[in-house]
Amino acid sequence: MRIVDVIIKKRDGKELTDEEIKFVIKELVDGRLESSQLGAMLMAWYFNGMNARELSVLTNTMTHSGDTLSWPDEWKPVLVDKHSTGGVGDKISLVLAPALAACGLKVPMVSGRGLGFTGGTLDKLEAIPGFKVDLTLEEMQQCLADSGCCICGQTATLVPADRIMYATRDITGTVENANFVTASIISKKAAENVSALVLDVKVGRASFSQTLADAQHLAKNLVGAARDQGMLTKAVLTSMDHPLGMTVGNSLEVIEAISGLKGKGPEDLNELVAIQGALLLHATGKADNIDQGRNLILETLKNGTALNRFEKMLINQHVQQGVAHELCYGNAESVLPRGKFSSPLVTSTSGYVTDLDALAIAQVCGALGAARARASDIILPAVGVQLNIKVGQAVVDGQVWGELKHECEVVPKDLWQKLQDAISISLTKPTIEVSRILEIIE
Amino acid sequence: MRIVDVIIKKRDGKELTDEEIKFVIKELVDGRLESSQLGAMLMAWYFNGMNARELSVLTNTMTHSGDTLSWPDEWKPVLVDKHSTGGVGDKISLVLAPALAACGLKVPMVSGRGLGFTGGTLDKLEAIPGFKVDLTLEEMQQCLADSGCCICGQTATLVPADRIMYATRDITGTVENANFVTASIISKKAAENVSALVLDVKVGRASFSQTLADAQHLAKNLVGAARDQGMLTKAVLTSMDHPLGMTVGNSLEVIEAISGLKGKGPEDLNELVAIQGALLLHATGKADNIDQGRNLILETLKNGTALNRFEKMLINQHVQQGVAHELCYGNAESVLPRGKFSSPLVTSTSGYVTDLDALAIAQVCGALGAARARASDIILPAVGVQLNIKVGQAVVDGQVWGELKHECEVVPKDLWQKLQDAISISLTKPTIEVSRILEIIE
Repeated sequence: MRIVDVIIKKRDGKELTDEEIKFVIKELVDGRLESSQLGAMLMAWYFNGMNARELSVLTNTMTHSGDTLSWPDEWKPVLVDKHSTGGVGDKISLVLAPALAACGLKVPMVSGRGLGFTGGTLDKLEAIPGFKVDLTLEEMQQCLADSGCCICGQTATLVPADRIMYATRDITGTVENANFVTASIISKKAAENVSALVLDVKVGRASFSQTLADAQHLAKNLVGAARDQGMLTKAVLTSMDHPLGMTVGNSLEVIEAISGLKGKGPEDLNELVAIQGALLLHATGKADNIDQGRNLILETLKNGTALNRFEKMLINQHVQQGVAHELCYGNAESVLPRGKFSSPLVTSTSGYVTDLDALAIAQVCGALGAARARASDIILPAVGVQLNIKVGQAVVDGQVWGELKHECEVVPKDLWQKLQDAISISLTKPTIEVSRILEIIE
Repeated sequence: MRIVDVIIKKRDGKELTDEEIKFVIKELVDGRLESSQLGAMLMAWYFNGMNARELSVLTNTMTHSGDTLSWPDEWKPVLVDKHSTGGVGDKISLVLAPALAACGLKVPMVSGRGLGFTGGTLDKLEAIPGFKVDLTLEEMQQCLADSGCCICGQTATLVPADRIMYATRDITGTVENANFVTASIISKKAAENVSALVLDVKVGRASFSQTLADAQHLAKNLVGAARDQGMLTKAVLTSMDHPLGMTVGNSLEVIEAISGLKGKGPEDLNELVAIQGALLLHATGKADNIDQGRNLILETLKNGTALNRFEKMLINQHVQQGVAHELCYGNAESVLPRGKFSSPLVTSTSGYVTDLDALAIAQVCGALGAARARASDIILPAVGVQLNIKVGQAVVDGQVWGELKHECEVVPKDLWQKLQDAISISLTKPTIEVSRILEIIE
């Protein structure tokens, strides 16, 4: 079999056999695939797509391209994870993982760093002094045994095919493709060897899927591929036009997540933590129905058991006990990096807030250091925006609607203007979404 | 400007600006373009094509990606070349270049090796002991001054962009594309700095263009791109279902070319040498019309001046004088490699020859060593087929219709059978083509 013939076959719109897909991935991982061939193969796949069988074989082959995680047999039924396609202000994982652990589930969450306009879950956690994201399998097992959850980075030997493909997709214009996104996400989750999975597929301008139809397509692709790999899987489609919660930026989001873990988080954060947790509790038989699952999750926030799991996880992931305790039970702000400067954002008219542009806010925060444009960039954890208002709320002229935390004394004019323009105010009261949940795909 | 953005633009079906195309080629030649990006860029171009402006800019940028050849000013109006898209038994260049030189033109023919089922012009010439294909610019100038023509290989510094792109196209499934073929051919000819060009675009099963429509499309692309680069250019569309002349294989074709240079070649070879030569004589003002040009060319074959130029070229390209003289005026077979074995091909029925499958014959010869499957393969110059009959001719059962020259004692059964099947015989007399010339595209 020759790689060039497989490329030509896909170029000409034909289905690849299982053997052909396995051959491509084996050659890739073994270093025999020329980089130019990977670029051409990805582009041919981008144009001519793949059917469900091809996607399933690709995902499975990628899953087994390196090590997979292994766990004690008795954990098998309670191993779960969640994945989000990424949004602005999305700190759900930080609350959900400990809450699920408090309900008796095991959550070996292998997460990512942000690249683009927003920090990833690992970037948020790294705002906490001492937090270690690179765990060995033994450390993950130890962390799960003790705290029930861990949130760590991908190891070098886990799904190497995805690491190579992702790096190549990034520079060859083949990122935005539902099949590649699916194979990348699901192969990593399947390599974790979890039994159930919930997917948070964001919809809106500040997410991967701009329209509901795009998100539905991606969600169905993801759910189908995940089930093919043996995971009980559901997807929640959630809106992502406005920031989730009241904070954007790594330190600020950790603080808000801790409020969430105390049952004092914003409504939209609570809602999404509860539904995603409930779906996993139901899938693993820990709850008879979704409502019961939702109540179980919210209970762990109110009774402090979720926060306790979070504190344990931090300590297991190398945060000093004193720091972890102060963060969870004392003055969280005192242990996290704070921005040197804080600039108030002020309304220039009265009326109702009709829009808060999550993408614009994230882009400004990102440009000021909250996210990486390149993998080598250094993140400034304190940079971010604290919001004081929500969409739908009435404001008066001159009201402080938010605070920008920044590290450079002078915020470039264009960025400041962009942030000012991120709020829209109208005299007509807008119809507001009562829920961020748009649809559940089973 | 970022390469990934240019790839995405073409991926999305948009036109690239002049600057974007120049940027891609500059990054490529300077070694800053990742191989994966070249693979993806080529595939995106393959799918979404390019318009005439993009093709012209690509060709021009490739032309100037390295050195270009330079000649004495007085040669400028008479510098010409030809290019063939490649066929089976195609020894036209070996006759045409010396014939044109004998008419007073200068022919700096930078030619290629065959890759695939058939040997290239350089492979044929290398059957001649001592023939040197790698000439410096000074050697080319010397050769042109003395013999009026040279046939040599591409130097490392001539059109480096094409060399890199061609090697990548070969392994990424992006060879068969009229725009890439055009940019590759025309950039090399433009870098030769010739004033007029004739293109032999083959049509038929043993050529790049399977149908007349494909060939017309390619020819128009080629003529347009060549004119954009300032060359007076015409294309001849010629049929390539049956082998050209009576020989296939490197040594055999050199012998047949020498017959051609003596005015004793097969009719189809004479016809194509004459028309291509006539078009160039007319373009350079050496002939008032095509008929006159045709006669001038045929005259050089009859009066020995073309053969004399050929002998001089051989000597300029390092063939010993005695060898060159014996080849041209003595027993040509005695100085060329001869196959260890010769096996007669015999008809098994009587009737008219309705077909001689050039592709099958070339594939068998190629598999036995007449061509390279990989660039590193070694060619066996003696391997080939000498035909005794032509399409349309009557044959009787048991007649020897050809001889296979081979170096291995036992010809594998499947190859032998394929060769036997290459001839078709029918009781009905077929309508035969009176001319290989299908169309001239101006």
